[in-house]
Amino acid sequence: MSSQETPQDGEEYQLPEERLEESQPQCPFGKGGGCCRICYMGPCRVTDGPRGMDKGVCGATPGTVVARNLYREIAAGAASHADHAREVAEVLEAIGEGELSAYQVRDEEKLRSVAADLGLDPEGEVQTVAKRVAEAALADFQEGGDTLNWLDRMPDEQREFLDEQGIEPQPSADQEVARAMHRTTQGNDADPAHILQGGIEAGLADGYAGLTMGTDLQDVIFGTPQPVTTEANLGTLKEDHVNLAVHGHSPVLSEMVVKYADELEEAAKEAGAEGINLVGICCTGNELAEREEIPLAAHSTQAELAVTTGALDAMVADIQCIWPGIGDVMECHHTKLLTTTDYVQIPGAEHISFDPETAAEDAEEIVRRAIAAYEDRESRQSYEVEIPDEKTEAVVGVSDDFVLDVLSNADPENPARPVVEAMESGDLRGIVGIVGCPNPKLRTAEMTERLIEDLLAANVLPVVTGCIGHITAQAGYLDPGMTDELAGDGLAEVLHALGDAAGLDGPLPPVWHMGSCVDNSRIGNVVRALSEAADVPTRDLPVAASAPELIAEKAVSIGTWALALGLPLHTAPDLRIEHSETVSEIMTEDLEDITGGYLIQEENPEMAADELLAALDDRRADLFGEEAIDRHEREAAAPES
Amino acid sequence: MSSQETPQDGEEYQLPEERLEESQPQCPFGKGGGCCRICYMGPCRVTDGPRGMDKGVCGATPGTVVARNLYREIAAGAASHADHAREVAEVLEAIGEGELSAYQVRDEEKLRSVAADLGLDPEGEVQTVAKRVAEAALADFQEGGDTLNWLDRMPDEQREFLDEQGIEPQPSADQEVARAMHRTTQGNDADPAHILQGGIEAGLADGYAGLTMGTDLQDVIFGTPQPVTTEANLGTLKEDHVNLAVHGHSPVLSEMVVKYADELEEAAKEAGAEGINLVGICCTGNELAEREEIPLAAHSTQAELAVTTGALDAMVADIQCIWPGIGDVMECHHTKLLTTTDYVQIPGAEHISFDPETAAEDAEEIVRRAIAAYEDRESRQSYEVEIPDEKTEAVVGVSDDFVLDVLSNADPENPARPVVEAMESGDLRGIVGIVGCPNPKLRTAEMTERLIEDLLAANVLPVVTGCIGHITAQAGYLDPGMTDELAGDGLAEVLHALGDAAGLDGPLPPVWHMGSCVDNSRIGNVVRALSEAADVPTRDLPVAASAPELIAEKAVSIGTWALALGLPLHTAPDLRIEHSETVSEIMTEDLEDITGGYLIQEENPEMAADELLAALDDRRADLFGEEAIDRHEREAAAPES
Repeated sequence: MSSQETPQDGEEYQLPEERLEESQPQCPFGKGGGCCRICYMGPCRVTDGPRGMDKGVCGATPGTVVARNLYREIAAGAASHADHAREVAEVLEAIGEGELSAYQVRDEEKLRSVAADLGLDPEGEVQTVAKRVAEAALADFQEGGDTLNWLDRMPDEQREFLDEQGIEPQPSADQEVARAMHRTTQGNDADPAHILQGGIEAGLADGYAGLTMGTDLQDVIFGTPQPVTTEANLGTLKEDHVNLAVHGHSPVLSEMVVKYADELEEAAKEAGAEGINLVGICCTGNELAEREEIPLAAHSTQAELAVTTGALDAMVADIQCIWPGIGDVMECHHTKLLTTTDYVQIPGAEHISFDPETAAEDAEEIVRRAIAAYEDRESRQSYEVEIPDEKTEAVVGVSDDFVLDVLSNADPENPARPVVEAMESGDLRGIVGIVGCPNPKLRTAEMTERLIEDLLAANVLPVVTGCIGHITAQAGYLDPGMTDELAGDGLAEVLHALGDAAGLDGPLPPVWHMGSCVDNSRIGNVVRALSEAADVPTRDLPVAASAPELIAEKAVSIGTWALALGLPLHTAPDLRIEHSETVSEIMTEDLEDITGGYLIQEENPEMAADELLAALDDRRADLFGEEAIDRHEREAAAPES
Repeated sequence: MSSQETPQDGEEYQLPEERLEESQPQCPFGKGGGCCRICYMGPCRVTDGPRGMDKGVCGATPGTVVARNLYREIAAGAASHADHAREVAEVLEAIGEGELSAYQVRDEEKLRSVAADLGLDPEGEVQTVAKRVAEAALADFQEGGDTLNWLDRMPDEQREFLDEQGIEPQPSADQEVARAMHRTTQGNDADPAHILQGGIEAGLADGYAGLTMGTDLQDVIFGTPQPVTTEANLGTLKEDHVNLAVHGHSPVLSEMVVKYADELEEAAKEAGAEGINLVGICCTGNELAEREEIPLAAHSTQAELAVTTGALDAMVADIQCIWPGIGDVMECHHTKLLTTTDYVQIPGAEHISFDPETAAEDAEEIVRRAIAAYEDRESRQSYEVEIPDEKTEAVVGVSDDFVLDVLSNADPENPARPVVEAMESGDLRGIVGIVGCPNPKLRTAEMTERLIEDLLAANVLPVVTGCIGHITAQAGYLDPGMTDELAGDGLAEVLHALGDAAGLDGPLPPVWHMGSCVDNSRIGNVVRALSEAADVPTRDLPVAASAPELIAEKAVSIGTWALALGLPLHTAPDLRIEHSETVSEIMTEDLEDITGGYLIQEENPEMAADELLAALDDRRADLFGEEAIDRHEREAAAPES
């Protein structure tokens, strides 16, 4: 079944910002969480505020409605990441069974270390261990077991802390999502705090059976990233090349496209191009940048813009964050949009069903279509190619493995020591994982950049993933040459010291690019390592998370996972909880007693930075005494001394 | 984690109808399906109509938005029924492993026949076969297999017909739901027809890994219903008894409550009561009525009303359709609300964690709390007990097994023959499965009653489940004494003949009560048997489905399953598809070429009856020629002749 809903000739094409403008004013009940469409007695608009009902037709309070809506967002995010991880696990299983020729285990050490961490036997033939790990992964989609295997990758102390309060996801990630949908259907779970506990559990399923499993297995198959330098922004497109953009999330597709773009270089030259210019969009961009030094051409919100350059011959997509608007702009620009995942189809796209078993042929077909599109370029468009003159250098691939190696180099006896000392002294006032999307609502105000610059100046280290990786790359924050300019004196010193420990010529970049959205697991791994090495629960560390421009339900579930780890979580736009005082109180206050985490909502970047700093200082004060804070404030008062 | 959000003293309590009144006007974008809250660039309000955006901020068309919203409703319904079936499968597994003393296999014949239909060995010790069947059931929640085992219970021809078009659910019901959530997240599946195909697949997962599995295994454990007479409406409450209502869905809980209500009769008498009066609400009411002759006290929308009689001492609930408003009204009336499922908690309720392993103790505790509440009745309320003088007789438990036995009695050689002949002659113009909820939006207009009376008069047989079972019981339609009054001459003749074949004194009742909402599977089984016996695809039979007052997402998924079987489906209120012409066209027209089913939306009962009659006549004309229709019209023109 498929349908065609593409723009008619003469229809005007709008960019995302224009569509956003047209959506104003947006529905306050949608934004506040008080819109309930769960049953056909409604829709109801409930709120604790002055306008709206105080109960739905079924009697649901604003607390019930708001909590259920939030829970479903988290479940949808968890479903997305778990499905992503499942595909990688299936590829690893096939490798283990000797059934796939296109994929191999590239990082045997990672394979064995993940196996050991899961309590599996890490010894034996690579293929055997691969099968063992894959089976443990796929068991996390089977109901009836005791627990998710991948929860073994969680910080022990925090896991026990949550266990004591009965917070534990279902033994199957799929069941966790299905249970969430069941619980939130009409006339079922109605207690806001209990529903939100379900949300936290779904966040844990996302964090481990989604993010961590995804990254672990991708590293095993495609290699664990180490820092490399690449370029970012639309200036990476090349007029005289076949420009092929890879958009979406899974390296299972994109790594094959890399391979065949290389192999078909000659065919591109025969078609009159100087070669094939492969660029990455969204998280696939991050995956390819950190492992293959492919340029980061555009974040998800710029994907349509990339098409409007007229230089893009084809865009191949797999799953997630492929805005349907791309189908339209393709139509206007005669660029090819190639979808590859059978359950993701977009009107206006050509579909090439990508299967790991036929990966070679499928990837070759994709590259050949891009070359054919290049050959047609002149006949297909009546306007000039116009590539913006925007391009920056960016160090990407600052993986958890790299960071932990560097810390071990710096102090082999106690790798956490230098970090903890820097935190105590205030040289490193804290770490903030900054993740998520580029939301046009906040993009024009450069929310992310302003937040990050404030944090850097205050000696906080931002570690980034996903489309925040693109934003920071484009802003130059991933360039080690910017470390001294952007980082506060203490942080700059730390970054230089770590650069030395890493054997580099200069400092680490002021912002660390840790990869794609599933690579948020890398931030989790660093936090876990710090917690375990320093014997400090994750919820006590001066570490926070921020999704300063979130768009996707996936960002909500990632943030919930951070809350489950006990981290303060900042979001903008506000999560949709305004219509319930109960839910707002739980999320921003009560939750701290339960997981250690709590929510900070702030759309002004300077105020968001202040609130994050206060949160980090609170944790430093608890950990090191008020003196540590005072020292920082003394230094802040006399920064030149 | 739990929170308290109950009404404060002096707060006014509203009944559902009043809350509905207060919700007016309801949001047109919620109702039309054009409300998108899937990402934080929105919420967006899109529509093909005059007011609203023509695209969301991400570029999603109304087709994408409407289809995604509908798909999520179906997925939530499938999640609910599959979770229900899973619990029963787990109980059967424990029986098979000899681990449960409270439950046994009551219907060995059904166990063996289900095993055989699934392609399993039906021979051997009961316990062994139980384990075999339970394992096949639980495998339907494991990813990685080839297909859902329970799809073997689908009509073969229709299954092949859908297979040919690539319509097949995931091999795990949980994965089906998780995949639905993933596919519909922002920037993923965007093709309306493709998304709706996903919805059809989720509907199939609901129909087989939910409804059919649920009924099959419940019949195995608790017995397959046969027609019995019980009573209906609030008049079944008894002032001088301990009144304990069982509300929700699963007989795993309620059958144990029946047992202990019986065992504790003496304790109730010691407390001053005449005994224990156990009554059923919602689908638990149907389950207990059809197997234990327990009265059908109230449908889901009347649950609060039952409390306001002042006679109800306790209401024990498990899952689904337990409106949160009940918690409030309990508070005002000091009746006990007991929740029992750990993932369903309601503010204001006492929670008794029910576990099949401790079923005896848990059920005893529940009944003892009801007795204690009776003892406190006088001290707890300052007003008179007022039980409405409304009570009807109702024949319930007209199960698929009963119907097929009767048909076999009537014509052992070819059981389908009398039905097909009656359909050809117009004596039986068709069968309509009437299912779903009592929606206050349509309840005051008696939508269901008026629809059913029109169908009956036109010689169409209504078979009902769920809360429609309550509505029809209360209206007297389940009373065989009403057959001659309500049914058209042809249908009355058929009902008398079947009554004879069943060895009854009189006719079958004019409306057949087939059980609870999961027992919609029974309607599916009858349709399958007719299709296979008469060698006519289900999509060609003069059979339709109607959810004339749907509320729950579960009703949407049940309806989608009917569409997947190729049946015309009537709904009121309208499904939320108005804002997309593409989706409206697919659902009401194009789908007929794909599954044979299509959607009829009509909130006026007389017009709905006319449309259903036209749909049935179309199928009769295709099957038997125009002559069959003409004959019916001739007879209709001269009904007295």
